[in-house]
Parts: sequence; structure tokens; C-alpha cells
Amino acid sequence: MDLGLSERLKPIHAAVRDMVRDEIAAASEEFLAEVPKDGRFVYTQRQRDILEGLKAAAKSRGLWNFWLTASARGYGLSTVEYAYLAEEMGKAHLGAETFNCSAPDTGNMEVLERFCTEEQKAPWLPRLLEGEIRSAYLMTEPGVASSDATNISIRCVADGDDYVLDGEKWWASGAGDPRCAVYIVMARTGGDDRPKHGRHSMLLVPADTPGIEVLRAMQVFGDDDAPHGHMHIRFTGVRVPKSAMILGEGRGFEVAQGRLGPGRIHHCMRAIGQAELALEIFCRRALSREAFGKKLAELGENYDVVAKARMDIEMARLLCLKAAWMMDQGDPKAAAPWISAIKVVAPSVAIDVVDQAIQLHGATGISQDTPLARMWTHVRTLRLVDGPDAVHRRQVARWELSKY
Amino acid sequence: MDLGLSERLKPIHAAVRDMVRDEIAAASEEFLAEVPKDGRFVYTQRQRDILEGLKAAAKSRGLWNFWLTASARGYGLSTVEYAYLAEEMGKAHLGAETFNCSAPDTGNMEVLERFCTEEQKAPWLPRLLEGEIRSAYLMTEPGVASSDATNISIRCVADGDDYVLDGEKWWASGAGDPRCAVYIVMARTGGDDRPKHGRHSMLLVPADTPGIEVLRAMQVFGDDDAPHGHMHIRFTGVRVPKSAMILGEGRGFEVAQGRLGPGRIHHCMRAIGQAELALEIFCRRALSREAFGKKLAELGENYDVVAKARMDIEMARLLCLKAAWMMDQGDPKAAAPWISAIKVVAPSVAIDVVDQAIQLHGATGISQDTPLARMWTHVRTLRLVDGPDAVHRRQVARWELSKY
Amino acid sequence: MDLGLSERLKPIHAAVRDMVRDEIAAASEEFLAEVPKDGRFVYTQRQRDILEGLKAAAKSRGLWNFWLTASARGYGLSTVEYAYLAEEMGKAHLGAETFNCSAPDTGNMEVLERFCTEEQKAPWLPRLLEGEIRSAYLMTEPGVASSDATNISIRCVADGDDYVLDGEKWWASGAGDPRCAVYIVMARTGGDDRPKHGRHSMLLVPADTPGIEVLRAMQVFGDDDAPHGHMHIRFTGVRVPKSAMILGEGRGFEVAQGRLGPGRIHHCMRAIGQAELALEIFCRRALSREAFGKKLAELGENYDVVAKARMDIEMARLLCLKAAWMMDQGDPKAAAPWISAIKVVAPSVAIDVVDQAIQLHGATGISQDTPLARMWTHVRTLRLVDGPDAVHRRQVARWELSKY
Amino acid sequence: MDLGLSERLKPIHAAVRDMVRDEIAAASEEFLAEVPKDGRFVYTQRQRDILEGLKAAAKSRGLWNFWLTASARGYGLSTVEYAYLAEEMGKAHLGAETFNCSAPDTGNMEVLERFCTEEQKAPWLPRLLEGEIRSAYLMTEPGVASSDATNISIRCVADGDDYVLDGEKWWASGAGDPRCAVYIVMARTGGDDRPKHGRHSMLLVPADTPGIEVLRAMQVFGDDDAPHGHMHIRFTGVRVPKSAMILGEGRGFEVAQGRLGPGRIHHCMRAIGQAELALEIFCRRALSREAFGKKLAELGENYDVVAKARMDIEMARLLCLKAAWMMDQGDPKAAAPWISAIKVVAPSVAIDVVDQAIQLHGATGISQDTPLARMWTHVRTLRLVDGPDAVHRRQVARWELSKY
Repeated sequence: MDLGLSERLKPIHAAVRDMVRDEIAAASEEFLAEVPKDGRFVYTQRQRDILEGLKAAAKSRGLWNFWLTASARGYGLSTVEYAYLAEEMGKAHLGAETFNCSAPDTGNMEVLERFCTEEQKAPWLPRLLEGEIRSAYLMTEPGVASSDATNISIRCVADGDDYVLDGEKWWASGAGDPRCAVYIVMARTGGDDRPKHGRHSMLLVPADTPGIEVLRAMQVFGDDDAPHGHMHIRFTGVRVPKSAMILGEGRGFEVAQGRLGPGRIHHCMRAIGQAELALEIFCRRALSREAFGKKLAELGENYDVVAKARMDIEMARLLCLKAAWMMDQGDPKAAAPWISAIKVVAPSVAIDVVDQAIQLHGATGISQDTPLARMWTHVRTLRLVDGPDAVHRRQVARWELSKY
Repeated sequence: MDLGLSERLKPIHAAVRDMVRDEIAAASEEFLAEVPKDGRFVYTQRQRDILEGLKAAAKSRGLWNFWLTASARGYGLSTVEYAYLAEEMGKAHLGAETFNCSAPDTGNMEVLERFCTEEQKAPWLPRLLEGEIRSAYLMTEPGVASSDATNISIRCVADGDDYVLDGEKWWASGAGDPRCAVYIVMARTGGDDRPKHGRHSMLLVPADTPGIEVLRAMQVFGDDDAPHGHMHIRFTGVRVPKSAMILGEGRGFEVAQGRLGPGRIHHCMRAIGQAELALEIFCRRALSREAFGKKLAELGENYDVVAKARMDIEMARLLCLKAAWMMDQGDPKAAAPWISAIKVVAPSVAIDVVDQAIQLHGATGISQDTPLARMWTHVRTLRLVDGPDAVHRRQVARWELSKY
Repeated sequence: MDLGLSERLKPIHAAVRDMVRDEIAAASEEFLAEVPKDGRFVYTQRQRDILEGLKAAAKSRGLWNFWLTASARGYGLSTVEYAYLAEEMGKAHLGAETFNCSAPDTGNMEVLERFCTEEQKAPWLPRLLEGEIRSAYLMTEPGVASSDATNISIRCVADGDDYVLDGEKWWASGAGDPRCAVYIVMARTGGDDRPKHGRHSMLLVPADTPGIEVLRAMQVFGDDDAPHGHMHIRFTGVRVPKSAMILGEGRGFEVAQGRLGPGRIHHCMRAIGQAELALEIFCRRALSREAFGKKLAELGENYDVVAKARMDIEMARLLCLKAAWMMDQGDPKAAAPWISAIKVVAPSVAIDVVDQAIQLHGATGISQDTPLARMWTHVRTLRLVDGPDAVHRRQVARWELSKY
Repeated sequence: MDLGLSERLKPIHAAVRDMVRDEIAAASEEFLAEVPKDGRFVYTQRQRDILEGLKAAAKSRGLWNFWLTASARGYGLSTVEYAYLAEEMGKAHLGAETFNCSAPDTGNMEVLERFCTEEQKAPWLPRLLEGEIRSAYLMTEPGVASSDATNISIRCVADGDDYVLDGEKWWASGAGDPRCAVYIVMARTGGDDRPKHGRHSMLLVPADTPGIEVLRAMQVFGDDDAPHGHMHIRFTGVRVPKSAMILGEGRGFEVAQGRLGPGRIHHCMRAIGQAELALEIFCRRALSREAFGKKLAELGENYDVVAKARMDIEMARLLCLKAAWMMDQGDPKAAAPWISAIKVVAPSVAIDVVDQAIQLHGATGISQDTPLARMWTHVRTLRLVDGPDAVHRRQVARWELSKY
């Protein structure tokens, strides 16, 4: 069970780490400051220059599409290896996109790669792999508890050579981006007579299909995350050809399961990266700032806070690496409870460390003068996306109890 | 040690509670939705109508200036009695201002009432008591650890009949409001030869004095809290007459101490109000939403979450009431550690309960579709304002250890 | 809602506090050291001298039977007033018994006083009130989850003028004491056709009735708590006259409910007393011991530990006092969720504070050289007796959810 | 960084695991039940039969002295490999001793092996390796804060060809065992003029040297841990030849440091074993016991408790394995903060899991009817031995802050 940084990964890892720290971090801050106050879901020329500049630099250095773990097209990295890179990418807002490794595109590209026909791939996959377009994954719906995905209810009815979709989706991350060209949509195709996990299907839907209406951007603690966006979308008589169906009717959960495992590991390792960054920010402040005649580090429980953060981060990282290693063993079912476990643990650790860093900074910590407030809302969100903690804890518990 | 709702308060309490719940809560949401996306520190006609409408209604019902605890002008409520009202006011964004009970004005009015001459009061106090103007309290500064207020460094130099102020303040809450007419400013007047708590003074500075420049609005988790605002302000050769000095040179800490006690109790009781509201929102969701074939209330640890929230809120409220009762005994020094204790406890309880309510709602909880995300950032802020937790825990510990 | 120390209680409270601290604490340690290593459920002459000496002194000072809250025979203290005394009594092993206020006798005497006929009282109550005999309360049974008391299964069958009992009870606290003369026994008298809470009855059973066999002493973290003891008892054809039945067949739960409320408050306030004692021990150690060139108080998080302990204790005490005040309002049903709440909170706070005191003492803290280890096992036990935390949290949650 | 179970270890691991579960666990309970109530520091014939029977069986199967990681005499296991065995050995009271792997003997044998001359080894090491005698390690002293080991004060003065020792030691684990033949004693040989870590020396002292007096057995939550014992020992003019000095005067800390690393890893992995056992006990109870018409597993937060336990154990184990792997890299200084980290984490996790198992069992959990109460007091002790948590957190924090 080798959880270490492999020899072949070391130079790649160093290149990614350095680029994030030395180039992407500052560029990300500038990018975010450039988002217009109104009419936010656009790219200004300056934003485009920043982002495409970073991507071009990364591509020219051969730092691209690391997530293609199993493919001949990519580096063929193991999940463990990719995890180490994801941690570094997590340390800047544009960290993942610079290397064409951002959610939800990596997961969507995996779906295209693994489950789609050549005809389905052709219009989207090559351009996604080049970073020319982006994509969204439409799962969650307003009004139903999507943590239990069998509740998903958007209607998808066969009509001649087409399927017709009606209903609403929300939290469609990335759908606000003007470059977003295609949606992967989970819809209900089967009635109550079908088995519970055989009632849903997954379809490829071009973003500009008539009948699609982007209602609004969902906010995350007041932030619309423009120009990426988490959009609330209405489908009214949206018509796609039958060839838009992935794998076949009723196989939506099969696709969803195949998609989620690696994505959750990536999320978690990026959260570990944020926790590391927050701990660094904490330590630097604790050593440089004084109150009551002492460095903050020497005051009260701050030593204990640092120690706890270091221990928590190490443990969460090791658990993520073990989950990644399980994934690499080729049995996703065996890996599933491990992925549920890190989905609970990693965001929670990151939230705690970022929160402590905020507290040490006083009011500065919640202001625009550090990245901490944005980091906090981001990692807090991770306790909800891809299943809330309670659902994952339930999975871990059922697995444990099933041993007896 | 009567901590109950007094007989005379009951009708007032019921009137405030009902008005917050039935009128102010919805009006607050509309008010916030009206804030323009750009150029935010103004009042639109609609905003003005909402706010002044609420205030006029409250005043006409005799629900006004409750905070004047010791004064003949007000109800003469005890701090315990006021605390019960503050809890209700905490349940809506405009809850306190409707009754002319909002921070920082109540504290500033107390300073005017208790420490100022008639000449100092005249231009400001009557209009503040009527809710015609607002005020700000300029304490915290960028670049120094203001948790140790002896670090405060803005220069205030006598020059003929004037004082001249130079330096920067930030987190001046309410200074973004176009109605904000006067600042109470803590400045450094004495050198290192003076005793540590005798180097600072408090002055009344009209907001429109030449040399005052509002640099920017500090953000709270990305929110500028317009039109109220927490402003970053620069003083360049700002000149005020010597009569602007409150109590006299070097007595700044005396004024500050007198000001802070009640204000902290109000903050804490409003936080209790937010916690109560969050628990109500939690319970309603838990009873109305289903997943995995059960009400959310019946799933996992949710019963335990409800029980813990109820117990934590009750304990925090009782502690606040005891601190208020201590304040009412007339010995602020004896009350001080109790106020430090609630300053740690009440925000922390509110944060936990709001966070649990967010989690139960899934992504809806962090979105604009519930007030929870805004409530969270607000109560989180309370762990920092008026002294971070660590400083207050230190106070409580020193008091305890001093017994032996 | 007066939760303070009443004027009339002040001299009594001072007398109890001083006697516990100055006389009973040291005597308790000597008493415990006198328990023989083998054949432990006896009283040596020295033990008898210590205990009866304390009791005689207390009685002669008029400090006796405080728990008789509602009765003309006692002080007529309110539950709030009694709670303050219970806190002090909790600070020494013999603290409660010295004043004839120890569990389970107070609860048993209340049952006799409130629910029994004069004939039932005569052989037991006067002698219990004088402290001449002791009693036990036989509720819990091996093999069933007694947290759900409807599971209680010991058989009680009418046979002529008698009832005949068969089955086992355990954790019969005090039944190891050679002075223990009478048991109050809950038994099943009704079949499944009766309503769930109408199947059980409560009986008075002399401890020397033929067929009663004390099998063993249950241990608490390895301690048999001799000579008090928590006994495992077998009933084989134990025959009592029908007049032994309290209130009547099927009314066992009515008796049990009436008995438990005050007893739980007493337990909780004694736990608060232990927490206070532990905090005092913590502070004295922190101020007197040095490591790494500093007082322990100045090291690491110890200030924060002290502050947290002080805040937690104050909140738990206020909650207990409010529960006591609810009890005094005369509606036990309304008081029930408050009592459940303190049953969760107070032991938990005491456990934490005692644990921190242990930790600060290093290995000394778990040894016989401080009372801390015994205090810890005692307060830990309180999370289980009279219903485990989970059951009480459930009660609090159901009450809360029932509001909506 | 391979943290897995190696191929060569698998059969050994299986043999140890099975023997602990199928033979040693029950034998341990019988052994403990055989300890006499009085005069406890002896071996009855039955105790001797049990213990020597287990040891003979283990030795005959080649399961012996695994701890000899670096030695040609043992299996030459890596620390990672040994860690997996330690986890299994932790699951029964006699688990470690059966395989001659128990503390403090393994550490003492390492000292003899690595730091001692052949003359020093001859009388003790061969017999220790055979399990014929036992040994103790005398470090901690009453009256000083031994968490800062530079406080150790027992006098050791050269006198002719001898050293003479005077002073007291306590918590000398294993010194109560009648088979304990030799002590390794840390004593103060240098004055304040010497560097802080050069004032102490380590000596070999036969247990039967005149002037040694065992004063009493220290108790752990009331338990004297007979016949092993944690003894309080007085040295009065105890005379040993100069050849008893290990390495040389002033080199005590060098020996102590070399000794502690592996020992702490063993302690921690045995704690993980206890946590695993407790989780198994929890799950079996949760699935077999009913209350309120449901399995305990289905009630309240129990699923969440199981999930948290599983996640915490996995993380703590991975951290222990990483610390072991660091140890195997040959740089103990680099491994030190990792060992401090697990010393904090592993006992804390075990305490939590055992405590939850106790709580689920109700009063049975604290009684003699499960091993849980004894497990709890054991793992609680680990937060104190070999340095309390606070000292180790401080080490981790200093290491972290030193990076900036």
C-alpha cells in the first residue's frame, strides 16, 4: 500500500506546486477582482487574458489533463498520484482550471470517455480536452431531497426519434460560464414499476437547445461565483435526439456512480490543499503579529491549535490517499465506503483550520484582505455537494455494521 | 436573582415579538433585496419607505428607545428586561433599528448621555434619540492588534484651540450610511510616559469634517453590508475644537469601558434570538421534508441535534440573563467577567445552531433562498467584534485564578 | 423566576458548605480507607463511629432532612433552595448521608410520604427519617434494556392474600449496606393486554424476606462501592402480603415518575458540586506547580481550559436551577424536559472538568493521591443511571419538535 | 511509503491475531479473576500455569520477540510490520506478554541491546529474551513535574568504585511483579553547571539491592494492576558498582530518547487494537439489543457514532503507520514530531470509542460483565504516560512553526 509521492511524479508535482504558488495564486486574485459588479456572467478581455495565459503556459510545459488516470492520452497517473497534484491545485482559485483539471469537466470528460459512443464524444470531448469549451452536470433539483438521488424527477419522455425534457435543475455548477457548451442531465425515464435505481437515465444536452432557460445564479453565502456560476435552469419541452442517451434508458445510476468516486477524491484533496494553505497563513500571522507584548503564537492555546491542525491535516490526507489507493485497486465498490469517509473528514478538517486562521486574524480574517473568508465558504460548501455528511456517515456505518 | 420576564415587560415583549415576526422580518428581506448592485451606500426611495415606515409604526405604538435603561426618558427597563427584547429584535435584519435600538447608536447615545456635557449632547443626542441621524464608533485600526486596545495609535495633537487627528480607522460600522452624522473616535493623546490605560482619549467628530476620507467598505465574507457598511476611513489633518474631547484627555478607556458592557449583552441576546430562529427553521424543515422514506427528523442524529441545540440555547440565554442581572446590581467591575463569558458562549452557540440548520437544508441552506447563510456570517462576526474569544476567555480565566 | 440563594437559606447554606469542607471531606477519605479489602459489606467500628458521628453532629445543628421540600416535617425548602445545598453535599463522599439526604433514600422516603398508607409508612418511614435504617430501589434488570422501563419483567403474581415475586434485579444501589432494611420493587403485574404504562406495579419488600438472595456486587470501573454496593439480587418465590402494593396494581409508572424528578435534580446539582471542586483542584495545581520554567497555569491552553470550565459550570448550574424552579411551579409534566436536559448536561460538564483536572495532575491525577479518579468514575456513572443520555436527549427533542 | 501489511508478515499476523482472539483473550480474563483480593503481588499456581502455558505455546509456534526489529536474533521486522502485530496484541490483557513483547521489557531490552556492554548484558538480557525474568524502568518521581524530565532529581553520587542512589521513584510499572529482577534507573549525576540535558545518567540496578524499598502500589482509577503493579519505591543509600552506568555519566537523555520512540508507537498501536475491539463490541451490541421496538443500531445517533469511530480509527492507524515508517527511515529526529502526534491522537481516539461502547451498554458497560471499563482506564492512562498530551502537542507545534 504505497501512499507516497512516486519518483516519476516528483518533477511534475514540483512544477505544479511552484506554478500554483508563484503564478496562479496572484493571477487568481486579479481574475476575481475583475469580475464586473453587474452583468457578471461574462469574461472581460482582462479575465480572458489571465485565464488563457495561464492555460497556455501550463499546456506548453506539458502540465495538462492530469486527471486522465487510466488513459493513453494522459500521463496515466494513478489516483494516488493525481491526489498529490489535486492538493496543490486546491491552493488557488484557478489552480485546477489552469491544468484543465477542474470540476465538473473532469467528471464529465470521464463520462464521455468511458460510457459514450464515438458519435457522442465527437462534438464535445476533443474540445473539452483542449480546454476550449466547458460543461455542466445537471443532477440536483429544487423541491426534492437530492441527497437521495432516486428522488430526481425531471421528466424525460420519448417522442418519435426524440426525448423531450421538462422540469427544473439547480446548482448546475459552471453553467453560468459563457463557454459552457454541453450539459449532462440526469432525468427520470421509468415509472414506479421499475426498480428504484433503474428509473433514471443520463443524457447529453447542448446548452443552447431551445427550451432551456437559465433562471438565476444560486448564491453561496451571498456569492454567485461568477463567471462560473451555480445555475438554476428550467427545461420546457427541450427536445434532444434519442442518440443523446448515454448507455441506454434506466442506466443513469450506473453512469453517476462511475463518475462520482474520483471527483470526490479530487474535491477532498483540494480541500486538504486549502487546509495546508490556511495553516501556513495561520503560522505566519502567529509569528509576525504581537499583542499583550508577545507574539500571537505564544498566547493562549495557539500552540495547541497549530498542533491540532497539523495532526488533523496529516490524518485526513492519509485517509484520502488510502481512498485513492483503494480506487486504484480496481474495485470501486470496495472503495466506496472509503470515499464516503473522506467526503466527511476532509471538508470538516479544512473548515476547522480555515476557521482558526480567520479567528487569529481578527476582523481582517473575514474581510477581503485575506483569501480566508472565500476559502471558508468554499470548504463549507463541500459538506453539502456530492451528498451531505449525514448520507456519507450513513454509508460508512452500514458498511461497518454489515461485517457482523 | 430574578431572571424571568417581569410582569410589566410582558405586554411590551409580546408587542415587540409580534411586530418582528409579523412585520419586520418580511420587510427586512425586501429592504435587503432593494440594495443596488452598484453604488450601494445610498437609500433608494423604496428602502427609505420601508425603514421609516417601520420606525414610524413602532414609535406610534410606543415601542422606542428601550435601551435607555437607567433614564427617565425611556422605559427605565432593567438590563434583564432589555435583554428579553434584544433577543426578539435579533430575529430580523431591521429588528433593532425599527425600535431605535441598533448598534452602534445605542452605545454612542449612552456615551453622550452619561459622559458628555450639554453642549456636546445638543447637536447629536436629540436627533439620535429621534432616529433622524445615525452615528459610528471608530475604535479598531488597520495594522495593529486592536484586541489589545492599548495599541490604538491614531494621532491626536493639540494645536491652539483645536485637536488635529491623523491616521486610519477601519471597521467603522454604520459609517457607510448616508445618515451617519457623527463619529466617536478613540485616539492616542499621551506618550509612553503615561500609564498604559491613560494614553488615549475619546472625541466627537462630525462625519463631514474636512480631511475625513472614506476609503472603502470592509467586507464580511464578501458582503459589504450596504447601506450600513463597515468603513475604512482615513484622517488627514482633521481638525476639531477642544470641546470635542469627552471627559478629558487620557480618559478614553474610561469611556470605552462604560460603553461596552451593555452593548455586548445586547449583541449576545440578539445572537440568542438568531439561534432560536435557526432552531425553529431546523425543526420545521425536519418535520416537512422527507428522504429515504422518512421525515428528516427521524433520520440519523437529528433528534440529538435538536436536543443539543435546545439545551445549548437555554444555557446560553440563562448566562446572558445572569450577566445582565449582574450589570443591574450596579458594579460593572463585578459584571465584567460575566460579560466576557457570554461574549464567548452566545455567538458560539448561535454559530452551531445556524450551521446545523444550514446542513439540514442541503445546498438550499447556503443559498439566497433562506436567511441562514446571512445569519451565519453575522453570528460568526460576533466572535471577533468587541474582542475576539481568546481575549475574553483570558479575562474569565484570570478572574477565576485570582480566587486562589 | 428567582434562581438566587434566598435570604432564609443563606445561613443554612453556609453551615452545610462549611461542614462539608471542614469536617466531612476528610472524614470521608478516612471512612473509605477503612473499608476492608475482603468481606467488604460490613461496617467496622471505626466506620460506624465516623458516619454516626457526622450524622449526630449534623442533627444536633439542625441540619437534617433538607429534602423534605413540601413537608411540614422538614424545612419546607423549595427545590431551588435544596439544589444549592445538594451542590455542597456533592463535594464529599459522605456529604449527603451526613444530612440524611442521600440517594436512594430521599426518593424512597418521598414515595412513602406521598403514595403510601399510614400502615405502609409505619415500619419504615420514621426510621428512615431518623437515619436508623436505609433502603433500596429495585428497578433495573439484567438482560433487558431498562432505559425503556416498559421492558421490566420481574414477575409478580397474586396468590391468595399475597403476591409472589420471581426474577432478577441488579444495580440495586445501597442494597449492600447491612443497614438496608426495605426495598421498593418495580414488578410486572399485567399482561400485554394492558396499556404499556399500566402493566407494572411498585411494592414494598422487606430486605430479609425469604427467597431474596444477593448474588453479587456490581462493579463500577472495578469498584464495588462497599459498603453501599450496587447489588445483583435474585427473587425466588418471594412472598409479600397484598398490602405491600403501593397505590394499586398497574400504577408503577405513576409512582416512578413522581419519584424521579427531584432525585435527578439532586444528582445533577451534586455533580455541579464535584465540578466546582475539580475546578478548584485544577486552579490550585496550576498556580503551585511548575514545568519548563513556568507555572502550569501559564502553559499552553490552560487559561482556556479554566475559562471553559468556569463558563460550562455556570451554565449547567443555571439550567439545573431553572429545572428546579420549574419543579417548584407544581407541574411536573412541564418540568420533565428540563430535567431531561440537565440529566444530559450536568454529568457531562462534570466529567469534562474532572478529566481536565486529572490531566493537569499527570499520573497523580489517576492515582489514590487525589480524589479525582473516584470523582471521575462517579460522575461518569451519572450518564447512565436514571436513563442514559440518549433517552433524555430524545425526550428533549420530542418536546421541541412537538411545538411545530 | 508502503504502509501496508507485507507479504512476509501476513502469516505471522494471522497467527498472532488468531491466538489473541481464540486463546489469549479468554485466558486473560481468567488470569485477572485469579488475582487474590489481598496480598496481590504474587502469582498463584493457576496464574503461573495460564501465563507460562500461553508463552510456551507462542514460543513453540515461533511467535516470540517480534520487537527485535533491527536484530539478527529476531524476525528483523520493520517498525511498520511490528505495528500491525502490536495492534493485535493490544486486544487482550496478556496479548503482549505472551509473545514476550510487553512494556517496559521491550524498551529495556532495547537499551541493553543497543547501549550496553557485554558485561552489562550478560546477567539480564538473555533471561529477558527468554521471558524468564522481567524488568522495570524508573523514571518518574513524586513531587516534580516529570513531563519536563530535566526535573528528575534522585541523587546519584560517586563513592569509591560505587555510585550511591538516594531518593524516590514512582509509577515503576512492572516492579510489583515478583519476577522483576532489574531496574533501569534515571538519576541526577551532574550539577547546575552542566548543560540541561547532560545532568542525568542511566544505571542498571538489581531489584534486590539493599536499600531499595517498595513503598506501595500506585492505583489507576482504584486498581493496583496486580501482579504487574506501578510501584512507589524509595532508594536509601543504594550502592551499585560503577560498571552499572550505561554509556557514561550525563548521557541519560541519550538513552531515554533512543528508548522512547518505538515504545510509544507500540503503545499507540495497542490502543488502536483496543479501539477496534471496542468498536466490534459496540456493533455487536447495537445489532443484538432492542429498545423502544428497534435495534439499538437504529436509534438516535448510533449510525453516526459507528461512522465516526470507523473514520477516527482508520485515520489514527494510518498516522501511526506513517510514524512507524518515519522511524524505519533511520532518522529518529525526523520521526520525533510524528511520534508526538500519534501519542496525542491514538489514545484519544481509543478513549472515545471505548467510552461510546460503554455508553451503549448502559450500566453493564461500566461493570465487570464486559472488559470495557478496564479498557477505558487503560487507554485513559496513555494520555499521561510517556509525556502528557500537552507536552506532545507543544512538540508538534514547535516543529510546525519552525518551518516559517
